[in-house]
Amino acid sequence: MSIDSYEASRKRSDEIRADLPVHPEKYTMLTGDRPTGRLHLGHYFGTIRERVALQNLGVTSRIIIADYQVITDRDTTEHIADNVRNMVVDYLACGIDPEKTIIFTHSAVPALNQLMLPFLSLVTEAELLRNPTVKAEQDASGHVLSGLLLTYPVHQACDILFCKGNIVPVGKDQMPHIEQTRQIARRFNERYGHVFPEPDGLLNDAPAIPGLDGRKMSKSYGNAISLSATDAETAKLIKKSQTDSDRNITYDFDNRPGVSALLTTAALCTGRTEVDIAAEIGEGGSGALKKYVTESVNTYLAPIRARREELLGDMAYIEDVLHEGNRRANEIANATLDEVRETMGMVY
Amino acid sequence: MSIDSYEASRKRSDEIRADLPVHPEKYTMLTGDRPTGRLHLGHYFGTIRERVALQNLGVTSRIIIADYQVITDRDTTEHIADNVRNMVVDYLACGIDPEKTIIFTHSAVPALNQLMLPFLSLVTEAELLRNPTVKAEQDASGHVLSGLLLTYPVHQACDILFCKGNIVPVGKDQMPHIEQTRQIARRFNERYGHVFPEPDGLLNDAPAIPGLDGRKMSKSYGNAISLSATDAETAKLIKKSQTDSDRNITYDFDNRPGVSALLTTAALCTGRTEVDIAAEIGEGGSGALKKYVTESVNTYLAPIRARREELLGDMAYIEDVLHEGNRRANEIANATLDEVRETMGMVY
Repeated sequence: MSIDSYEASRKRSDEIRADLPVHPEKYTMLTGDRPTGRLHLGHYFGTIRERVALQNLGVTSRIIIADYQVITDRDTTEHIADNVRNMVVDYLACGIDPEKTIIFTHSAVPALNQLMLPFLSLVTEAELLRNPTVKAEQDASGHVLSGLLLTYPVHQACDILFCKGNIVPVGKDQMPHIEQTRQIARRFNERYGHVFPEPDGLLNDAPAIPGLDGRKMSKSYGNAISLSATDAETAKLIKKSQTDSDRNITYDFDNRPGVSALLTTAALCTGRTEVDIAAEIGEGGSGALKKYVTESVNTYLAPIRARREELLGDMAYIEDVLHEGNRRANEIANATLDEVRETMGMVY
Repeated sequence: MSIDSYEASRKRSDEIRADLPVHPEKYTMLTGDRPTGRLHLGHYFGTIRERVALQNLGVTSRIIIADYQVITDRDTTEHIADNVRNMVVDYLACGIDPEKTIIFTHSAVPALNQLMLPFLSLVTEAELLRNPTVKAEQDASGHVLSGLLLTYPVHQACDILFCKGNIVPVGKDQMPHIEQTRQIARRFNERYGHVFPEPDGLLNDAPAIPGLDGRKMSKSYGNAISLSATDAETAKLIKKSQTDSDRNITYDFDNRPGVSALLTTAALCTGRTEVDIAAEIGEGGSGALKKYVTESVNTYLAPIRARREELLGDMAYIEDVLHEGNRRANEIANATLDEVRETMGMVY
């Protein structure tokens, strides 16, 4: 993606952000997650909180649980049903309202997946290989490139366009995907007739939430606080996080990654600044810092965790939410696919 | 494809051919066509006649009208609905019985198309590129490789496996596709649990039916006699076909392609041999030969064409056949997809 087109996307994202509270009815947001584990603080402050805000602004909201994306880079679907159900629990506990937001699974919506066929005809092999995330994920997985990973930008176009999504919350590194989705929409519309919007990325300006060791927060690094962890598990994880021997607590991301990550975590949970918290702890050392962070996190997550517990006690309701979300997603996908068939002349 | 595995496939095909009349109930045949124009004598003697025979033996039969395959190598779906309806007319006129054989269109069966997602995860990019037909079609189309053409072996696996097809009539050059379908079935079964058969190619031993000029019969070469042509159109096409100035008619495919193609055409329509027909015409020259071929073709096609006309007068019936075929194909595809979800643990 060129710097020019990135700047244009950034400008467009800023305009939309300003317009969202004024005209929420103009927007349909599509977003989602791979159900590979429990959601953690990184997900929460990175995207979930924003989804809830957009939903509550009145933006039409759809969340895809991308279960087929689990097998882009692994050979098993172990624990997938459990992960999917817990993901719904996490969403609801965080404030996603299934009356307002459709939550559905990729594998439950055949008409969405059928869009793969016409959309694949609109991209070239070279364009698929050019996608930087395909390259990055390929490098990360260490596998040979599977057909599913290779065509990943096209699934994502299906996910966004089946519901005519026109905004997609993204990080800067995901902008090329949005660009490929725009291209697919544009080419379809030009070739067959207008059906799809060209979606815009809604750029996330929140700084990446560091894991407890200052690296990217990830379950596989053991540096992530799950929403579903207990207070005691949270305390234990924070306690064993690596800091340094300087008792004077200061915020210095580059030279004190552990201490700084803890400060950011507390800052997000309290609404205070890192510098402010550091000043308060002063010479208290890591022990005092960790105590403060633990209390901040557990206090912040208390209502979410209480709601989680409550929801876990009524899994029939969780199933209902998913069934109803899948039913509504199928309704939308079938209507869009009908339109696609009509536009392509495939009505027999 | 190695010579060894080709020999194994050939042997297996021969065994199946011997077993078909004995145990037709063991077999499900999947076959189909791209709806890019009218069927011609090449299709008829090459595959349609065999499909009718297998259907009448009692083999479970499904025919896919592969409308999405039209856009693997072209940017338009012009005339597609007309081509699809006429294809149904051609099938029925040739003896395909919609009570016995399910005729359906690719675009009408979302659950079939959804199989693309799990199946794409089972192949590598390298394997997709290795498919010789993908290469050949890419060369023929002169386009860059589209994502749809690149993934063509995977769609074909979906088409065959959605109905658990275990035999697929093929020419020798299509055997690598069957091999990729077998591989996808095998890998799915090993990874997740047994759902799919490993289909066998039923090798077609009929010699390729030459067009009127001795080249491959193809509408684009203008050397093909459509089933839907009138007697007069057929006469005209045969009349302008190129022969040679030797009045003595002999069968010599290499040196007299035009004369020999006409002899083969008449031989197929009369059940006589080329040599026998040539001997009968003797010194009569091209004029007598063309007269004989025209009569043979028009006599042979007379009942098919009469049935065609009859069917064209009742397009509502044709629509019904297609709707019912699509309904039944969806029923089968939904059941298979349910099984796939169950096996992959994607039941929520």
